[in-house]
Amino acid sequence: MDGPRAVPENGNSNRSSSSVIDIYPLSCYYFGSKGSICPKNETIADRVLRMKADYDAHGMRNCVAAVIAVELFKHPHLLLLQEQNSIYKLPGGRSRPGESDIECLKRKLSSKLSVGEHGRGPEWEVGECLGMWWKPDFESVLYPYRPPNMKRPKECTKIFLVKLPPSRRFIVPKNFRLLAIPLSQLYDNEETYGQILSGIPHLLSKFTFNFVEP
Amino acid sequence: MDGPRAVPENGNSNRSSSSVIDIYPLSCYYFGSKGSICPKNETIADRVLRMKADYDAHGMRNCVAAVIAVELFKHPHLLLLQEQNSIYKLPGGRSRPGESDIECLKRKLSSKLSVGEHGRGPEWEVGECLGMWWKPDFESVLYPYRPPNMKRPKECTKIFLVKLPPSRRFIVPKNFRLLAIPLSQLYDNEETYGQILSGIPHLLSKFTFNFVEP
Repeated sequence: MDGPRAVPENGNSNRSSSSVIDIYPLSCYYFGSKGSICPKNETIADRVLRMKADYDAHGMRNCVAAVIAVELFKHPHLLLLQEQNSIYKLPGGRSRPGESDIECLKRKLSSKLSVGEHGRGPEWEVGECLGMWWKPDFESVLYPYRPPNMKRPKECTKIFLVKLPPSRRFIVPKNFRLLAIPLSQLYDNEETYGQILSGIPHLLSKFTFNFVEP
Repeated sequence: MDGPRAVPENGNSNRSSSSVIDIYPLSCYYFGSKGSICPKNETIADRVLRMKADYDAHGMRNCVAAVIAVELFKHPHLLLLQEQNSIYKLPGGRSRPGESDIECLKRKLSSKLSVGEHGRGPEWEVGECLGMWWKPDFESVLYPYRPPNMKRPKECTKIFLVKLPPSRRFIVPKNFRLLAIPLSQLYDNEETYGQILSGIPHLLSKFTFNFVEP
């Protein structure tokens, strides 16, 4: 074991006040590909119409997303999906009516990062909720709190910590790229990564990463 | 009881995945004042010299700060201290060698928000660590992670959630103002509030605030 610790140099450890996450080198994982997931080719206007129809039928849209960390160059990196060389996203998606957050996240992780929805890989270990983002309307602006004047939120995205085992096979649809991006690159970089991703370093800041050598 | 809930409108509650914080109206609390705390009137250069001497003597500087929320206009507000109409700060300060984070935070809260260090008010209920900020050198830039090239951090500030009882007396030194600032004003407002305060909405985003009526 090696790497950063929260132990202050004056010997006053206080380990109880922060949590430790074991993370493993990127090289511990296998990355392969599978057939494309059918992309939603729609205009922004069509998307808003679809959101409105969904809202009328099912109420607020519930989304979930996974923060998955690996070690590279002695620094935590997050696994992000990139579609068509454009938007970076956390793995995740929208939950079905009646589906729990955890069930949904496991289903989405299997379909986007594993063999399939009924993937034969190890179970996904979904940990605590790190944060929530709210949309008061069908536009793209999010808030990390319920805005004071928001009566009926249109979307809530919950961010969960997902812990990786010491090894695992990732199988990613061909139309996505799976990237390992350093925390230091996400921080304060909303322009490139958007609101949710640029805020992840804050959400993880209470943790001490323990870099496990395989 | 009233106010925002994390219960999605489709009846899929998932309450287990997020935590609830009870907060009380600002009007439940009494605010008084006491004699000034002697301010450190020093130049930035003198401050850096003092930091360096402290570092050589005691190692990394450990600081703690408290996030204390109240309800106003059906929105969470944080209690912040303002000194001399300038910097806004979370209540807190630097721990003494050998002092635990929790002990230090209770001492600082008593000296800055209560009758004295051995204040006769109710105990402070210090909750979980929400985040940590690191300084790689004696300058003022902070990071919500350990920067990859940081060998010997100079300062670590831990942010703790502090839960208020339904009523309490706050007694604040005359040279400070205690303000209740809405979360929505802190968010994305580093220019006015600095890195730590503008990031608090992220750190609290996993919580659902329950506005308790007295």
